[in-house]
Amino acid sequence: MKKLVLVFLFLVAATALPAQSKTHVDLIVTGGTVVTMDASRHIYDNGAVAMRGDTIVAVGARETIESRYDAARTIDAHGEIVMPGLINGHAHAAMSLFRGLADDLSLNDWLHKYIFLAEARNVTPDFVKWGTRLGVLEMLRGGITTYADMYYFEDEVARATKAAGMRGVLGETIIDFPAPDNKSVPQMLAYTAKYIQHWQRDPLITPAIAPHSIYTCSTKTLQETAALARKYHAPILIHVAEAPFEGEQSRAKYGLSPVAYLESIGFLGPDVTAAHCVWVDAGDMKLLASRDVGCVHNPSSNMKLASGASPVVNLIAAGVPVGLGTDGAASNNDLDMFEEMDLAAKLQKLVRMDPRALPAEQVVAMATINGARALHMEKQIGSLEAGKKADVILIRTDAPHATPMYNVYSQLVYALQASDVDTVIVGGKIVMQHRQMLTLDEPRILAKARDYAKKIQASLAAPAK
Amino acid sequence: MKKLVLVFLFLVAATALPAQSKTHVDLIVTGGTVVTMDASRHIYDNGAVAMRGDTIVAVGARETIESRYDAARTIDAHGEIVMPGLINGHAHAAMSLFRGLADDLSLNDWLHKYIFLAEARNVTPDFVKWGTRLGVLEMLRGGITTYADMYYFEDEVARATKAAGMRGVLGETIIDFPAPDNKSVPQMLAYTAKYIQHWQRDPLITPAIAPHSIYTCSTKTLQETAALARKYHAPILIHVAEAPFEGEQSRAKYGLSPVAYLESIGFLGPDVTAAHCVWVDAGDMKLLASRDVGCVHNPSSNMKLASGASPVVNLIAAGVPVGLGTDGAASNNDLDMFEEMDLAAKLQKLVRMDPRALPAEQVVAMATINGARALHMEKQIGSLEAGKKADVILIRTDAPHATPMYNVYSQLVYALQASDVDTVIVGGKIVMQHRQMLTLDEPRILAKARDYAKKIQASLAAPAK
Repeated sequence: MKKLVLVFLFLVAATALPAQSKTHVDLIVTGGTVVTMDASRHIYDNGAVAMRGDTIVAVGARETIESRYDAARTIDAHGEIVMPGLINGHAHAAMSLFRGLADDLSLNDWLHKYIFLAEARNVTPDFVKWGTRLGVLEMLRGGITTYADMYYFEDEVARATKAAGMRGVLGETIIDFPAPDNKSVPQMLAYTAKYIQHWQRDPLITPAIAPHSIYTCSTKTLQETAALARKYHAPILIHVAEAPFEGEQSRAKYGLSPVAYLESIGFLGPDVTAAHCVWVDAGDMKLLASRDVGCVHNPSSNMKLASGASPVVNLIAAGVPVGLGTDGAASNNDLDMFEEMDLAAKLQKLVRMDPRALPAEQVVAMATINGARALHMEKQIGSLEAGKKADVILIRTDAPHATPMYNVYSQLVYALQASDVDTVIVGGKIVMQHRQMLTLDEPRILAKARDYAKKIQASLAAPAK
Repeated sequence: MKKLVLVFLFLVAATALPAQSKTHVDLIVTGGTVVTMDASRHIYDNGAVAMRGDTIVAVGARETIESRYDAARTIDAHGEIVMPGLINGHAHAAMSLFRGLADDLSLNDWLHKYIFLAEARNVTPDFVKWGTRLGVLEMLRGGITTYADMYYFEDEVARATKAAGMRGVLGETIIDFPAPDNKSVPQMLAYTAKYIQHWQRDPLITPAIAPHSIYTCSTKTLQETAALARKYHAPILIHVAEAPFEGEQSRAKYGLSPVAYLESIGFLGPDVTAAHCVWVDAGDMKLLASRDVGCVHNPSSNMKLASGASPVVNLIAAGVPVGLGTDGAASNNDLDMFEEMDLAAKLQKLVRMDPRALPAEQVVAMATINGARALHMEKQIGSLEAGKKADVILIRTDAPHATPMYNVYSQLVYALQASDVDTVIVGGKIVMQHRQMLTLDEPRILAKARDYAKKIQASLAAPAK
């Protein structure tokens, strides 16, 4: 009898005080189709994600999560896709102010008559601040939670990115000619050393160093840049093998392909992310894989500038981690990872004349977990798993262009659009909810961008000094 | 003195009674950037379009139009692009119910294990009604005001299209195997004759006849089809030279390319619109131009199915009118002309390795006036000009991804999206205003599409009878 009473009391306590047995978290997203992008590619049809601080605590079936956790705040994701935030592996955010300034031109005219001239006459800290805000605004609206950037005045880029609540791997550009911010390589390296030290412990910003390319940086510059990066354990971002001329110059000058040349000077390593990798052969791919270099494919930019089609299927087969990027708005003309996913899948099918090439699931991986690998950040971001950063996006699936839905990966790659992204969470903080930006003053950014456009157009009309 | 008094009185009358001197119209769209796509490519920065009934009465500068016309209804287009409705030159609207059902497969598996099977087991008049409604809903939302369709039960397609207030060139499919609607070619031809006669005087619907292709129709079928079309002066829609196997079969069987074979049997003429035209040589292009055949380029579908890249720049140079199409959602997977414009421009640049190939203005022409030419409807649609049908769309330009704007054609092709379309007018009637559909019950269509998806999936799981 005594035993029975005890059991009875225990049961009363257990049912009357269920809240005491739940673990408290800050935020739960619940009720959506949770696409984890974990190693087993688990999808919870009615799933939930629990977050505390900037970290994911648990991912699972809705009833499991709700029975184990209670949250200060809950977001209902019913009818939505819940997935890791997209990773834009290569961008020049501030160049959004040049969107559509110079299209359909030869590479030479585009670069020398427009882009370099417009940069020389306009790029100031204020330009970079507003241009980055514009780029970050567009990216967050399209579900991008992390981006890699290469530009000038990168300290401004970092400040604008952090203020928007976005994650960034932000590389100050090193180049062998006077740049808008620094006039010589020693000045650039000094700026970068200071910049890296300032940002290195930031939870959102990873300061990086970005030697522009092998055709704009000498061997000495590349080696000094790599040495600086390795001194501070900062990542290196660089354009590699983008257009045919780069390979021709490299072979003429060094007798080696761009990748083999970079290997010969000790540049390649597990801290390097190489954008483009269009003109790489089997030997280059083997080198990239053996040195654990990440590659970032930019299909829009490569097509629009007629750079070529990167052998993405072969790179992946060789073991190279391949992410996906938008490049800058001057060569795209938007920063839209849904467009890049669609294009990446279709481009490989076309160039290989095989509709089975690069299926949708692989493309979603490129935009998430493999994008994280390409940036050497796969332990922090790229999938929804306990312990990773709470970078989570919610995507509506009720638009006519996305109805019906048979396969979630197909829908993400071939049908859904950036405008379907509903809510964006970075490091546990909601930065966009139901398409309302919470961290950025959108009307002011757009007004400033229009003002800058007038100034930029006038600057190009002015005669050379 | 008398003369002066008369002049004075005239001036008083002219300023005091301006309203009496104005011509009455039904609708004026005013204040936007009016991109006419007329022969001189005139753009009015602050323009207006006046419409009466289903026809455009005048296009011009805002103050000119407002001083000459008054309207029962005015739409303020300030800050928007005002342009002719987009023309989707090739689609299978009802196949939207198969969106994403079968992706990343070999052509053989895709067609035989999924699409043909799903069609045989599901395509009924009700399927076509709801599938067409879904497709038309997506297309109107994305600024498409005219589309060309090839499917079965085309009478249902016509009814759904007309009810939505959309313009269509709608072709009943003729094919040498039992179709969901008619089991033999004589039955198909009899159905089509009746269908054409029923719809031929409709203001929105142009009934057409659609022999599927040279590899699914015998010479006899093609000739009988052409004869029927010519008896009723109805347009002919056909797939031509889409994939390599078609040319191989044609050369083996007839000793001729697909285009030369069609010429040899008297099929080609100024009433034919040929979808795809991927595998056409210089001789084929000359033939197509000399017979005034219109071609429709479908870049998404051609890439996704690995069909190849149509030589669009060469076709245009040969004098062939080239439009742009989405193909069906089973091979795309959306019906989005903004995506097709972006892709068309980028694909030509890539395959020609020339960033100057197919500039933005030419691509906008493909989606409007040249699309009309490809459908032999350039006298009625494709540009904003007095006397043409009042098919007008308004596009917002204030999204972050479309800010700033330097060039309106660049923005349309490379940055703006279907979701930026704000208001759609077809034949003078507003079918979508501020993204609210006025002619379609969107929630009901989406619910029906989801129901059908379950049915379709179950049908594929069932064993063969």
